[in-house]
Amino acid sequence: MKSTTLLVFAASVVAFSVPASAQFAKPEDAVKYRKSALFVMQQNFGRVGAMAAGKTPFDAKVAAESAAVADFMAKLPWAAFGEGSDKGETRAKAEIWKEPAKFKEYADKMQLEMSKLSAAAKTGNLDSIKTAVSATAGTCKTCHDAYRKD
Amino acid sequence: MKSTTLLVFAASVVAFSVPASAQFAKPEDAVKYRKSALFVMQQNFGRVGAMAAGKTPFDAKVAAESAAVADFMAKLPWAAFGEGSDKGETRAKAEIWKEPAKFKEYADKMQLEMSKLSAAAKTGNLDSIKTAVSATAGTCKTCHDAYRKD
Repeated sequence: MKSTTLLVFAASVVAFSVPASAQFAKPEDAVKYRKSALFVMQQNFGRVGAMAAGKTPFDAKVAAESAAVADFMAKLPWAAFGEGSDKGETRAKAEIWKEPAKFKEYADKMQLEMSKLSAAAKTGNLDSIKTAVSATAGTCKTCHDAYRKD
Repeated sequence: MKSTTLLVFAASVVAFSVPASAQFAKPEDAVKYRKSALFVMQQNFGRVGAMAAGKTPFDAKVAAESAAVADFMAKLPWAAFGEGSDKGETRAKAEIWKEPAKFKEYADKMQLEMSKLSAAAKTGNLDSIKTAVSATAGTCKTCHDAYRKD
């Protein structure tokens, strides 16, 4: 296949009909993006959480790797809460767009605690991991209670 | 909320009923995980691809950031193609589990080209980005043609 054909193929992967400043072609893509990013984050965080709670054996290497992925993923969902993405297949409450500063504060807090968890997991100290898992889980819950429908 | 309660909450995020060596609690989680990771990757890759094809204005900063995220995401889906995850809401062909070496070769090639794209995007040189986007898109297509149902 020719280079030019592949470029067209690559571009068609996301059919942009909006300015580059808007990161998503359609609001549905934004909703799917943030849910996807949060799911990947949650799976990795949950793996460390299960070790912290003694539900699965502690594996320092897996914990460190999973926490690092969760830490990276924690940064991604927020750009996908743009205007117009409050509809469709989402449990996001309308308050998110009414109280953007508070929502951002919660999102920032989660990212901070997740980065501490990743740092703790790198040390391999299970007690530090437990403390950081609890703190991070608290930020998940606070935000879900305020901004996610049941 | 007490620390111990939060730890139980954190662990319940993923209800592990399998050994820690199995990364996913259920095959459905594995399917959802790889689709989520690939979607986040595709959205970021597509953003750079749209710039490379001239469909959206070139923004070097956004291109570099998006390519870096795509590069990170490219590493994640493969752990989620484990035994038993060939069923359910997936377009993955059975050949993936019959030809694991070839599937891994394709997956490795994609990761390699995506890492080159991220490196190219860091330089801000649009011609280098175009070359790398084409090469990466080629690896997507090769693998989808062989291993993804229409």
